[in-house]
Amino acid sequence: MPQRSDDRHRVVVVGAGFGGLFATKSLRKAPVDVTLINSTAYHLFQPLLYQVATGILSEGEIAPPIREILRRQGNVDVRLGTVTGIDATARTVTVEAPGIDYTVGYDTLIVAAGASQSYFGNDGYADHAPGMKSIDDALELRARIFGAFELADLQPDPADAERWLTFVVVGAGPTGVEMAGQIAELAHRNLPGQYRHIDPRRARVILVDALDAVLNTFGDHLSTRALRRLHLLGVEVELETRVVGVDATGIEVETKRGRRRIESMTKMWAAGVAAPPLATRLAEATGAATDRAGRLRVNPDCSLPGHPEIYAVGDMMSLDALPGVAQVAIQSGRYVAGQIKRRLDGREPGPPFKYFDKGSMATISRFSAVASVGRVRVSGFLGWLMWLAVHLLYLVGFKNRVTAVLHWAVSFLGRGRSERVSTFQQAYARTAVREYGNPFDRYTTNRSSDPS
Amino acid sequence: MPQRSDDRHRVVVVGAGFGGLFATKSLRKAPVDVTLINSTAYHLFQPLLYQVATGILSEGEIAPPIREILRRQGNVDVRLGTVTGIDATARTVTVEAPGIDYTVGYDTLIVAAGASQSYFGNDGYADHAPGMKSIDDALELRARIFGAFELADLQPDPADAERWLTFVVVGAGPTGVEMAGQIAELAHRNLPGQYRHIDPRRARVILVDALDAVLNTFGDHLSTRALRRLHLLGVEVELETRVVGVDATGIEVETKRGRRRIESMTKMWAAGVAAPPLATRLAEATGAATDRAGRLRVNPDCSLPGHPEIYAVGDMMSLDALPGVAQVAIQSGRYVAGQIKRRLDGREPGPPFKYFDKGSMATISRFSAVASVGRVRVSGFLGWLMWLAVHLLYLVGFKNRVTAVLHWAVSFLGRGRSERVSTFQQAYARTAVREYGNPFDRYTTNRSSDPS
Repeated sequence: MPQRSDDRHRVVVVGAGFGGLFATKSLRKAPVDVTLINSTAYHLFQPLLYQVATGILSEGEIAPPIREILRRQGNVDVRLGTVTGIDATARTVTVEAPGIDYTVGYDTLIVAAGASQSYFGNDGYADHAPGMKSIDDALELRARIFGAFELADLQPDPADAERWLTFVVVGAGPTGVEMAGQIAELAHRNLPGQYRHIDPRRARVILVDALDAVLNTFGDHLSTRALRRLHLLGVEVELETRVVGVDATGIEVETKRGRRRIESMTKMWAAGVAAPPLATRLAEATGAATDRAGRLRVNPDCSLPGHPEIYAVGDMMSLDALPGVAQVAIQSGRYVAGQIKRRLDGREPGPPFKYFDKGSMATISRFSAVASVGRVRVSGFLGWLMWLAVHLLYLVGFKNRVTAVLHWAVSFLGRGRSERVSTFQQAYARTAVREYGNPFDRYTTNRSSDPS
Repeated sequence: MPQRSDDRHRVVVVGAGFGGLFATKSLRKAPVDVTLINSTAYHLFQPLLYQVATGILSEGEIAPPIREILRRQGNVDVRLGTVTGIDATARTVTVEAPGIDYTVGYDTLIVAAGASQSYFGNDGYADHAPGMKSIDDALELRARIFGAFELADLQPDPADAERWLTFVVVGAGPTGVEMAGQIAELAHRNLPGQYRHIDPRRARVILVDALDAVLNTFGDHLSTRALRRLHLLGVEVELETRVVGVDATGIEVETKRGRRRIESMTKMWAAGVAAPPLATRLAEATGAATDRAGRLRVNPDCSLPGHPEIYAVGDMMSLDALPGVAQVAIQSGRYVAGQIKRRLDGREPGPPFKYFDKGSMATISRFSAVASVGRVRVSGFLGWLMWLAVHLLYLVGFKNRVTAVLHWAVSFLGRGRSERVSTFQQAYARTAVREYGNPFDRYTTNRSSDPS
């Protein structure tokens, strides 16, 4: 164990997502003691959650243990727990872990707790349309998606079978588009021939969005390409369509032409994000302002007004209308680590945080993706190769990710899905929550079901 | 979809474990319609559950979807559900699946529902010491084992840390020995260097058994070898020690010298098996006798007395004191399929079922196993190579198992554990069940928590 001296500068990082993890790594050689607090023991590679939900990857492949990633970094102490309070005067955070609460003091605080799913005030939807933010979400969706085909096969009434074979994805951003594309591939490519009473190819995959384009941040050209590709896959895209109700057996939507009901047992929500409850608590503790999504309005250097010792990065910060993507989190995390090092070195603060847009991409199906890099717009197979290269490069940064590549080979070249398993707990957990109250509340401040 | 004619002989197989799956496969070319009913969508390779629990393998790697295994077998209909009733006169079984009940008629019935964990009448132990029978069990244990190190690291009081670092495995058969060995390897080889406040090497792994030897069915020689190897790994083996109490923070044991308490937050149960509730129901429906473990006493051809059209195979049958191992299930499953084919061909029934003992083996740690094949007793590295060969051969029978081999390489040659992830649901599900009642009851007739 490393020597620690009590007068070293103490940095507390809340959250081990992209922002918190890269901030921590950037402090590797700094004369600081870092405490990295996260509500799970793993870092989560969120952009691949949809592949866990659709049986391509195992949860371990997208969620390396934080301790393993940082095992050679001597100045970091990884601690399990959920930060429930911040005292900006005493400079402490209070943390809850199963069966134990504790307090950690800081000299500098970096909050990087990411974003929660937002149901735009309709949290009751969550029971029927899980979000896409956590491993719990992805495994629950996996249970629901594969379970839907199993249960469709059992229905004597064709209307019931049809309801089980209708999948509705709400939100046509990258996550929603990728989910819809993968479910369509499952239905048309992976599952046919495995059922006696249904034809999986008859499954309907409906992608709903209130806006008038899929992937609307990608620009007209790629948006049109993506839409065409989704149509080719058999995905029904319903744009300018607002969700006004979600229940156990269907979803209510509203368009200019009026209201309509879609019968569907399997709904998923990829529509909105909101800052986690911690953002509200931090705003209360520091007087900081928040934007409409609850994100903290920060100074140009990512610090909170009046609190140069507190930074917010990634999805938690509201700055220059930057999007909630991995690259913003990574770059802002590294940036504040740099600011801290400058301060400790006695140097002037650096220039304001500037986001370098490396581009964005979304896969639609195997061998087909859209990518936007600078002024270059790529789609189809070339886009997919770029997607593959970028994700391979990223995964290589972590150890033992070679099996992920093999699972991709199985799914993209073959017709298999290696990871179709769910537990009873996953399949029925949310029902239990509905019927018995949420026993997990204490541990899930990261989720929209949190009351705050 | 295959043509089915209504006058084909209908075989219903209950359970897709080793017995049911191999019976079904052996009926591939028979002029029968097979309905294979299982409470999960996957076949479970139970002997490797301990590797899922200790982070070596993903759940998908030991649980291939039944539909995928059988996708080329045209005469089988795979159906999800739990058989809750048998009418031996009408020759029907009733099945419960989420939201739907249904009935299936049979001409021949093969029951192969395996065994449940038995707590010898103390079902309350299950809350605190999960068994090792299902994917749910293995993932819950994974959450508890890795969670224990996380929580130990958080305890300010050394006594609390010690309690979190004490692991008790009840039952020194193959499953218990393998679990104890793997937890010791985790503590001594994989996790050191990843924590700031604890040294994982100080973890205690205690293996408890009421008998006077570990692996007592393997004979004196291998039992002694295994014991020595466990000692080398640092496992504390407590023999002739009966468990008389299990609670949230510890376990009470009794030896000749009296009672004693072991403080431990993480207990697991690998001590006993019992026939599932279905065996009782079948006994009531047919008048068949059961043995002490609740298994069905069968004729020498595995059929139930007075019911030549009903067979019990594998862990559900009581015959010649055969052990509850995979090979008995596989061979009896194949045997009854052969009997059915003979009968349909108009041939004489074959000779009584005869078990061919291919031997047994248990790994103790990487590179070390004990194996007993015929008169040959092998231990150490040679035993481990045999273990590896046998398991590779078996896994190769299923598609896409190559990642399992890679995960083995990672764990045995490197120091990594690729699959350490758990969900909140898994970590806290049993607590929820205790506090709110068991919402899963309807779906878990396979588990000891079932009232029957």
